[in-house]
Amino acid sequence: MGIDMTNDRLNAGKNKYDELQGPGAGERLAGVFAVGSDLARFGLELNYGDIYTRPLFDMKQRQLLTIASLVTLGGVDRALQSHIGGALNAGATPEEVAEVIIHTVQYSGFPRAMNAMVIANAVFAERSKEKAPD
Amino acid sequence: MGIDMTNDRLNAGKNKYDELQGPGAGERLAGVFAVGSDLARFGLELNYGDIYTRPLFDMKQRQLLTIASLVTLGGVDRALQSHIGGALNAGATPEEVAEVIIHTVQYSGFPRAMNAMVIANAVFAERSKEKAPD
Amino acid sequence: MGIDMTNDRLNAGKNKYDELQGPGAGERLAGVFAVGSDLARFGLELNYGDIYTRPLFDMKQRQLLTIASLVTLGGVDRALQSHIGGALNAGATPEEVAEVIIHTVQYSGFPRAMNAMVIANAVFAERSKEKAPD
Amino acid sequence: MGIDMTNDRLNAGKNKYDELQGPGAGERLAGVFAVGSDLARFGLELNYGDIYTRPLFDMKQRQLLTIASLVTLGGVDRALQSHIGGALNAGATPEEVAEVIIHTVQYSGFPRAMNAMVIANAVFAERSKEKAPD
Amino acid sequence: MGIDMTNDRLNAGKNKYDELQGPGAGERLAGVFAVGSDLARFGLELNYGDIYTRPLFDMKQRQLLTIASLVTLGGVDRALQSHIGGALNAGATPEEVAEVIIHTVQYSGFPRAMNAMVIANAVFAERSKEKAPD
Amino acid sequence: MGIDMTNDRLNAGKNKYDELQGPGAGERLAGVFAVGSDLARFGLELNYGDIYTRPLFDMKQRQLLTIASLVTLGGVDRALQSHIGGALNAGATPEEVAEVIIHTVQYSGFPRAMNAMVIANAVFAERSKEKAPD
Repeated sequence: MGIDMTNDRLNAGKNKYDELQGPGAGERLAGVFAVGSDLARFGLELNYGDIYTRPLFDMKQRQLLTIASLVTLGGVDRALQSHIGGALNAGATPEEVAEVIIHTVQYSGFPRAMNAMVIANAVFAERSKEKAPD
Repeated sequence: MGIDMTNDRLNAGKNKYDELQGPGAGERLAGVFAVGSDLARFGLELNYGDIYTRPLFDMKQRQLLTIASLVTLGGVDRALQSHIGGALNAGATPEEVAEVIIHTVQYSGFPRAMNAMVIANAVFAERSKEKAPD
Repeated sequence: MGIDMTNDRLNAGKNKYDELQGPGAGERLAGVFAVGSDLARFGLELNYGDIYTRPLFDMKQRQLLTIASLVTLGGVDRALQSHIGGALNAGATPEEVAEVIIHTVQYSGFPRAMNAMVIANAVFAERSKEKAPD
Repeated sequence: MGIDMTNDRLNAGKNKYDELQGPGAGERLAGVFAVGSDLARFGLELNYGDIYTRPLFDMKQRQLLTIASLVTLGGVDRALQSHIGGALNAGATPEEVAEVIIHTVQYSGFPRAMNAMVIANAVFAERSKEKAPD
Repeated sequence: MGIDMTNDRLNAGKNKYDELQGPGAGERLAGVFAVGSDLARFGLELNYGDIYTRPLFDMKQRQLLTIASLVTLGGVDRALQSHIGGALNAGATPEEVAEVIIHTVQYSGFPRAMNAMVIANAVFAERSKEKAPD
Repeated sequence: MGIDMTNDRLNAGKNKYDELQGPGAGERLAGVFAVGSDLARFGLELNYGDIYTRPLFDMKQRQLLTIASLVTLGGVDRALQSHIGGALNAGATPEEVAEVIIHTVQYSGFPRAMNAMVIANAVFAERSKEKAPD
């Protein structure tokens, strides 16, 4: 049996995604669509297998760049929420995430940046609650 | 009394919209806004009266092109959901709708395409449930 | 003790925002983010302190221009809802707000304009209810 | 021979467009595309026949709203240049056009607004030159 | 020496791109960037190796969907020109390309669609000239 | 004579802009528009006076975030070219700039990223030429 290199990209992508979003996250993402599952596979292969694994920037830096991009793109609240969580997982502080949004307002305008800051603060509050001692 | 050609465009639009979304849909769309109802009328006249009735592409092809456009536009979940339903009504399979989204990811980026695939799968699931034998 | 001119811009912005959204609104906006509060401050200073106070256009005209911009931007439902309310507060009629959306459809396309008209009609209905005699 | 009401909308559109862009402009726009000329026809019919002729806002106000929309849309320099000229033709001053762009920067971000102001100043300079005595 | 599957995706992509844009086009695209050449490689691998080769839609259909997406995206004139040429190479008629743009105007608005039709007509005119007998 | 704090923000902005784009650049930007010069002033005050001077990220990091945002925004070639030059001035390597564009393609799609890489390579080539010995 030969080596399935495509599968290697997919496995690399799942591992990288797990590293960012927790154990099993890549497997769940791969199976999220009953129809059109290749879209999730292409995302895992290209984004997490090919790109996030590149050496020049680390995971935290990549997540900060991602947030700058998503704030500007607009209309992708789900992705923004997920990547803000990913940024925190990769070691960014809430202040750094907020600073990316503040920096981006020059280019994206205020409505997109304000919307992103609402989402970010909700993620920060959720994390604080999880960590709070009982 | 003369012929009201504007009304002919509106009637053609309502008929075409009914063909796509079910009996009475055009009438409901025409009356959806208590204020600003001319926006709905212009949409029925231009989009469904003038454009969807043109001969070069059939309804299924037009709905697939529409989905490629809406995935790229972003931030229009309601329209996307409605046109994915319309595409199925016009004879497209769930696999064809999903393939349009997969094709479009090259140009729209992953967050828009992933969001569209979530909406598409929800429409597909709803349709399966409706058809399911009791 | 010197004069804190930055604070003057913030105070001007809060006052202008109160004028548009009601007493205390500027203070609430200034404190809306636990993390990244400078984004709200920059918005109050630049948008409401520097720009909305400029003499060439009055508040109503500025709110109508804002709606034309937000319909076109897309994906900012919260801002659109807030500024439609602001337009009414500044003296625009529901018909004028709707006319801006109808005018903008040429440039924004129908999905963005239809979505905006749904939001606008919800704001109009809410206002009618508030005013209704018991 | 019957009345071609569609043609009436087209004629109304051409007349309105001439009023904005000068005699013969509507006729030239109608014939601008060797292939796909119906796109120009739909634009003349809907935009200038149906919408610009509506009574609630005058031509100057419509052109200012248009500029707010186009600055926000981005990537449409040709349309922006044409409508800035149209705004001046409809009686707007260069200062009013510039004020719309300044107002819009809150929502569109600086790169779109700066790009629009470059285009606007080029139109203003061209007009000054045309008017300059020899 | 093992099989370099990544290279297989790249080769498939180059072949598909050559099929669309002429012999040697894939090779030229792969080498177009002195810095950042992996972007072109990822495009060839994912877009032309993984996606354009999928069986559900043929090349002509994929190019029409692409044009619907690019008209809507806006600000990508170079890509639009290239894919309009690709659509003609894949067997689409100028009338079909124009019809996609006319269909898309409902969603993208007129400025994006008009700009695309200008580009399309320039491509059509260039092709006519190339074919003209001497 | 009192202290003009607004002017302090403007001076801080000009100094920061000079640091990024060379001596005199801020002064030139402040005077670039014959009409609407306050837009440039607001940009210098907010973007370079208030935001670029904030301590959490250095100039290089801010320029990389800016490029991620501008690639995603699209239709702003002039701004992209200027900030890619600014990124190099702030100490980023061509490889780092290219890596930001490669990272961003996941979110912006290929046409925007390819267009940005064309612009980036033109800036890199121009810089190489300037440095080349005679």
